[in-house]
Amino acid sequence: MSNAREQILQTTCDLLEKQGYYGTGLNEIVKESGAPKGSLYHYFPEGKEQITAEAVQQSGEATAARIRAGLAASTSAPKAIHDFILLIAENVERSGFAAGSPLTAVAMETATQSERINLACREAYGMLQHAFRDKLLESGFSTSRSEELATFITASIEGGIILSRTSHTADPLRVVAKHLKILLAL
Amino acid sequence: MSNAREQILQTTCDLLEKQGYYGTGLNEIVKESGAPKGSLYHYFPEGKEQITAEAVQQSGEATAARIRAGLAASTSAPKAIHDFILLIAENVERSGFAAGSPLTAVAMETATQSERINLACREAYGMLQHAFRDKLLESGFSTSRSEELATFITASIEGGIILSRTSHTADPLRVVAKHLKILLAL
Repeated sequence: MSNAREQILQTTCDLLEKQGYYGTGLNEIVKESGAPKGSLYHYFPEGKEQITAEAVQQSGEATAARIRAGLAASTSAPKAIHDFILLIAENVERSGFAAGSPLTAVAMETATQSERINLACREAYGMLQHAFRDKLLESGFSTSRSEELATFITASIEGGIILSRTSHTADPLRVVAKHLKILLAL
Repeated sequence: MSNAREQILQTTCDLLEKQGYYGTGLNEIVKESGAPKGSLYHYFPEGKEQITAEAVQQSGEATAARIRAGLAASTSAPKAIHDFILLIAENVERSGFAAGSPLTAVAMETATQSERINLACREAYGMLQHAFRDKLLESGFSTSRSEELATFITASIEGGIILSRTSHTADPLRVVAKHLKILLAL
């Protein structure tokens, strides 16, 4: 993949996380990425919707890879998930509460407004859920319980990030880590 | 409160839920609300940031009131919360996955971009958490457990709505209802 294409996608991921789909303009993507304007139209002839869908896919893949790497730190899924959420809490704090939920705003803005971006968001959330599910399966949880718990874990972490970023303290994420550990120990 | 002021705030709440802060323009608020343009500047001389902060506060109050009313349906907090989440699931489905998270996009877009709107979002999420906390307290949970569980419940419902709206099925919210019930029974 070319450098300009990569730069455009990474810049779009960052802008979407900070200000959402409607807050991000093509001119800003060009300016922030440093890529020539022509390369934007060359690599993404279908414009902002295409760039956003591909950026969402890239965010999903990157986040799922971070989850899988983080969860590899412990063989016990409950401990691995607990410790990983504390790591997210630290990262959200370190970003000054500016980062930690690359998909949320875009997913909410486009749930019924753009089929293409909605599908990309759906697949991205699916990748996150599968990362948790696979860890639970490896740790001996049944298939159906792993599927359900992966959904519940993804939902509560997502909500924990939202409450933490909004309240400018990562305490909500720590509460999520603690209570998920209790639930996973059952 | 005047009709024009009310119309402007309600329209803003609806637009923020659908397309977030950056996606909502003053001209669109005027057009959709049917209020005279002059009344917008009369009631909200500080512009879009002021309207948004007040709309967020109104959304928080309305949502907290709906939570309190919904939870009154049962004296048992675990049952009341479980049944209330199933009600949210129905409402999200009935809206065609267009509604159910009036604060999310705005909260994420403005967490570090507007102190005024961030404070309004923080207070609004606080109102939702207090509604759950008070129900848990009434139901005999200790103060510290009620506080923590209220945070966890708010986070997991918020995330459940996001996953449900994105995946165009309310199953994630039903999973949240089920697992919160298990946790609250401990």
